[in-house]
Amino acid sequence: MSTQAIMKWCRFELAGKTAYGIVEDDSVVPVRGTPFAGYERSAERLHLGSVRLLVPVVPGTFFCAGLNYAGHIREVAAKIGESPNLPTRAEIGYRANNALIAHGEDIVKPHDATDQFQYEGELVAVFGKKVRRVSPEQALDSVLGWTIGNDVSERSWQKSDRTFFRSKNSDTFKPMGPWFVTGLDYRSMRTIIRLNGKQVDSFNTADMIFRPEVFISETSRYCTISPGDVMWFGTEGKQENMKPGDVIEIEITGIGVLRNQVVAEA
Amino acid sequence: MSTQAIMKWCRFELAGKTAYGIVEDDSVVPVRGTPFAGYERSAERLHLGSVRLLVPVVPGTFFCAGLNYAGHIREVAAKIGESPNLPTRAEIGYRANNALIAHGEDIVKPHDATDQFQYEGELVAVFGKKVRRVSPEQALDSVLGWTIGNDVSERSWQKSDRTFFRSKNSDTFKPMGPWFVTGLDYRSMRTIIRLNGKQVDSFNTADMIFRPEVFISETSRYCTISPGDVMWFGTEGKQENMKPGDVIEIEITGIGVLRNQVVAEA
Repeated sequence: MSTQAIMKWCRFELAGKTAYGIVEDDSVVPVRGTPFAGYERSAERLHLGSVRLLVPVVPGTFFCAGLNYAGHIREVAAKIGESPNLPTRAEIGYRANNALIAHGEDIVKPHDATDQFQYEGELVAVFGKKVRRVSPEQALDSVLGWTIGNDVSERSWQKSDRTFFRSKNSDTFKPMGPWFVTGLDYRSMRTIIRLNGKQVDSFNTADMIFRPEVFISETSRYCTISPGDVMWFGTEGKQENMKPGDVIEIEITGIGVLRNQVVAEA
Repeated sequence: MSTQAIMKWCRFELAGKTAYGIVEDDSVVPVRGTPFAGYERSAERLHLGSVRLLVPVVPGTFFCAGLNYAGHIREVAAKIGESPNLPTRAEIGYRANNALIAHGEDIVKPHDATDQFQYEGELVAVFGKKVRRVSPEQALDSVLGWTIGNDVSERSWQKSDRTFFRSKNSDTFKPMGPWFVTGLDYRSMRTIIRLNGKQVDSFNTADMIFRPEVFISETSRYCTISPGDVMWFGTEGKQENMKPGDVIEIEITGIGVLRNQVVAEA
């Protein structure tokens, strides 16, 4: 990773056309092709503010670590009335593509959701190489870049349901973006979470139970990871409730800010 | 569904080219386009035996009901030493695309898998329409066709692990195919499972705890279902172990036979 140049890759729509682009200051340089399969810069330069950002990738497989920071596990356990159960192995879970939304799009709180409607700010790896049985030492070579995810969760459903289909995978519950960035070292990142402009949490992104290279290596013992797949790495701390009208921001050092507003279901 | 014509849709590769095709007797008529976004028949007609079948669709979201037949739930509970826990609500789960293989491809038994390496023969809906908040009465209109899935499972990992990442989502654990068929009524189907040519199970496909229209409707209360998504509906009965060299066949009335051989990991 450290030998790659820093590039910000976005996916955007403009006048009905979808493309990948390279973000440079306040501009987007559209490319032909994709960052995964090869690309060519165009001669165009668009104002970043003039394009509609899309999720930076729609993954083939949407991996998600779930519980991966010790403090958060204790908090969630207390909330749902169970004993904290710290994972002893890096066992990856999943989220669903229907729930993905881009930076700037609205998180829709379902009409039957309780007040326990919460954000989770997470580091996300975007893969650029196909790997199987990769060592922890080589694992980060499969990561093309890093982005930000908000693993929005309804805690009463997380407690009551057999699966996460509505607690974590309802439409709009998975904001991801605003772009992904190559050439970064996640070990120097900090995750900062702001609710309506007020900082509600801040933690060292790398303070995980199992670091990305461990999750990637362990997953790849059984599962092929492919270009365009993503892996989310969990969140730390205690979450507050979000209500319609709230603006939630997840900032991760070097990547940017993922900002979404909460609205009530119509 | 009942007003649609019966058509068999396959996806295939021939000489490096991937396309959808319509299966007619022992022939495949390639099409331009897809069954989801519109298509045009070509003038070609290929021998079915000359093409390599691919999974009929790579889903955007891979929904899976998991436990959905009462007899199977009692069997699995006994195997993993827990009390049977019949679901009281239709809560959908997920599987991962990395695990998909086509009809005729090999199921690879990992070197560290135990003897409890088993098939699960399942009916699969392939969606053709985008739906959200669809009623049970309208739900089947979103289904373009039906195919067959084998939810291969390693029971010791299913018991020991926090997630299904290797028990059910290891590479090659999700055979699907050989094609999907439009215009069928699942209520008249029978699922027959053969291990090395010997019938090991046979059940009415419709004898589910929650029928497809209930799962589709309930899922769509929170989650958008899109063209190309698939939903697997669970299996019935008691499964036997599979070992390298075994051939497992899942037949469902009107769809066909999904056949795969088990091989040992190299």
